[in-house]
Amino acid sequence: MDLSALIQKNSTKIIFIILDGLGGLPIDGKTELERANKPNLDNLAKISACGLHLPVDYGITPGSGPGHFGVFGYDPLKYEIGRGVLEALGLDIELQKTDVAIRCNYATKKDGLIVDRRAGRIATEKNIELTSRLSKYINEIDGVKIILKPGKEHRFCLVMRFPKEIREKEAWVKDTDPQKEGKQPLDPVPLNSESLEVAEVAKKFIQKAEEILKNEEKANFVLLRGFSALPEIPSFEQKYGLKACSIAVYPMYRGITKLLGMDTVPVEGDIEEEVELLKKVYKDYDFLFFHVKKVDSFGEDGNFEGKVKKIEEFDRFLPEILSLNPDALVITGDHSTPCILKAHSWHPVPLLIKSPYVLGGMVNSFTERECLKGELGIIHSLSIMPLVLANTLRLRKFGA
Amino acid sequence: MDLSALIQKNSTKIIFIILDGLGGLPIDGKTELERANKPNLDNLAKISACGLHLPVDYGITPGSGPGHFGVFGYDPLKYEIGRGVLEALGLDIELQKTDVAIRCNYATKKDGLIVDRRAGRIATEKNIELTSRLSKYINEIDGVKIILKPGKEHRFCLVMRFPKEIREKEAWVKDTDPQKEGKQPLDPVPLNSESLEVAEVAKKFIQKAEEILKNEEKANFVLLRGFSALPEIPSFEQKYGLKACSIAVYPMYRGITKLLGMDTVPVEGDIEEEVELLKKVYKDYDFLFFHVKKVDSFGEDGNFEGKVKKIEEFDRFLPEILSLNPDALVITGDHSTPCILKAHSWHPVPLLIKSPYVLGGMVNSFTERECLKGELGIIHSLSIMPLVLANTLRLRKFGA
Repeated sequence: MDLSALIQKNSTKIIFIILDGLGGLPIDGKTELERANKPNLDNLAKISACGLHLPVDYGITPGSGPGHFGVFGYDPLKYEIGRGVLEALGLDIELQKTDVAIRCNYATKKDGLIVDRRAGRIATEKNIELTSRLSKYINEIDGVKIILKPGKEHRFCLVMRFPKEIREKEAWVKDTDPQKEGKQPLDPVPLNSESLEVAEVAKKFIQKAEEILKNEEKANFVLLRGFSALPEIPSFEQKYGLKACSIAVYPMYRGITKLLGMDTVPVEGDIEEEVELLKKVYKDYDFLFFHVKKVDSFGEDGNFEGKVKKIEEFDRFLPEILSLNPDALVITGDHSTPCILKAHSWHPVPLLIKSPYVLGGMVNSFTERECLKGELGIIHSLSIMPLVLANTLRLRKFGA
Repeated sequence: MDLSALIQKNSTKIIFIILDGLGGLPIDGKTELERANKPNLDNLAKISACGLHLPVDYGITPGSGPGHFGVFGYDPLKYEIGRGVLEALGLDIELQKTDVAIRCNYATKKDGLIVDRRAGRIATEKNIELTSRLSKYINEIDGVKIILKPGKEHRFCLVMRFPKEIREKEAWVKDTDPQKEGKQPLDPVPLNSESLEVAEVAKKFIQKAEEILKNEEKANFVLLRGFSALPEIPSFEQKYGLKACSIAVYPMYRGITKLLGMDTVPVEGDIEEEVELLKKVYKDYDFLFFHVKKVDSFGEDGNFEGKVKKIEEFDRFLPEILSLNPDALVITGDHSTPCILKAHSWHPVPLLIKSPYVLGGMVNSFTERECLKGELGIIHSLSIMPLVLANTLRLRKFGA
């Protein structure tokens, strides 16, 4: 339902923790969460409202964008976020409504064919040098400002800044990445009559870049993917009346939360550094999003032991987080990433909400199987935010 | 959500078993499933994802059409299938888009009243003789080709083949069966302005049939029910990319699956013969639907012991089915048929999905009460197919 009429502000604080790719599946009878030695999480689960959330729908495996949109209460079937936009926001490019963002790779082209889609994963320093060179020679194309920013290894981001506002459809241009080595790069084909201009600028950019990079041994070509413009989306503050801050090490997750109007504070390192930052900014915000990426990374690598250890590492920092004494604390994932699948999956994700207003006493530990016995049951991800707002008394009564 | 963009093909195999009318209610404290001695089903449930599915909605008792549509992922509120169409397809009549199908009964009429709606359940041989006689004298009416086919006992099917395509609404004509003995047969009343022609042909058919049958002692009249044309419905292959085969003894269930574009192989007998057929055709299909009718039949008769024994019989064949080693195995019902109701019911139906990608370990046996503890919870029937596709890795990730 539409919450907007029910929102009321108060001084409560919410800590919202996403252990990326949290849910798992058993190996030798136990899941990653079941194997992990995590006394603090288990004790917290005993006194919390537990359950599982379904990120998008039954059987649907979400990407990171839809997974996060869901837990933040933005319907992933309604709001879509392009890869280019995500990447640009994550690289701290302040995207405007006049922009088209594109994810690019340096690649190796030989005899007209792409022989390495990642240019041998060139060093980030080399990338910085090349992107700086491209920036120097390509400032604008047909009146469109060209903004380039290096990412890690072979990745960089291209933003076309038009002199007019760009609607989402105007950015729909086909990826030029052939996806397989040994094939010709594809043309940036417009996918509708409104994206002709973006396609034309892309074509010229590729030609100019090839000319500038022609003497490079590895990075002598560029591949463009994920053409996208900013989606129209209400901010967290507009939607919930929450002043929100995002604490995330990885660019993409800062990108997602920037899109929702959260403040993002760059942080290097991992959980320890994120906890330090959390403590530092805690007093300034109503809602603190705390993202732990590497649980998912180990899952995607199929590294069961690594995922277990990362959960255990988080568990050791949990008392420090709890000592901030937030009015509500949420711990869940944006999706499951079972090591046996080495990929995101469709499985519901363990969820815990701590507040003074829960039953508690339903589960013995924070695992997939125990959470099934919890007071929340299996809920859709979109129900998490209403529950969190309710648990901090931020929702008025509905009807008389 | 719309799965079509996420479907990917692979070589996995799915066995999808419907024990018709599976769910039940307790007599002396135990349901049919709880009373049955079924070690194989119980052991399978222990390592499977269990839950219950809600066929249509809370409190809604589904017919066989909606029950099967739901578990196959076709919204029963969107797609409707007429009884006449079901019957015709089940009798192996290859229905065309130009056809109206009608379920008919031979009946006994005396002094203008229907005194036996089933003509004393005449022998099938007699039915064959009478239907052959009707066919001989009634080839066409007003340019509409008349096709007749005998069913069992007093039942036969009438197909009107028009020289033009027939839309569903054009077939909406009222049943002529008065539903109670001692009443006059009803007229085939058109239910809208588009069904006038079908109603007129029906009226003439009834008159001609009565004239031809006038000297019969019992079967001297015909009652027409379930006027219907083919619904527009995407095939299983179009919808899911699955090459599907249907194994069912009873005509109606072969009919339903034919409508979804499944191959149907006629089979006589019961579970044993169906298992033989399953093994024979297994290699040729991605999806094998396996239908056991008699669990429902005993439920409808209120025969608790019979339903228990039929479940136990299926249990004895389960190891043979499991030995085919499908990538995913589903066991559920299309609806519940509790013996104490002697009818279909609205109760959620026990559901089991076996695949390498489940938690398992949540239930001790395959019963209504144990399935409530399972990892699937209570899901809508429409969520079963997405889960099965996910569990065979046939759905791509949604979003970046």
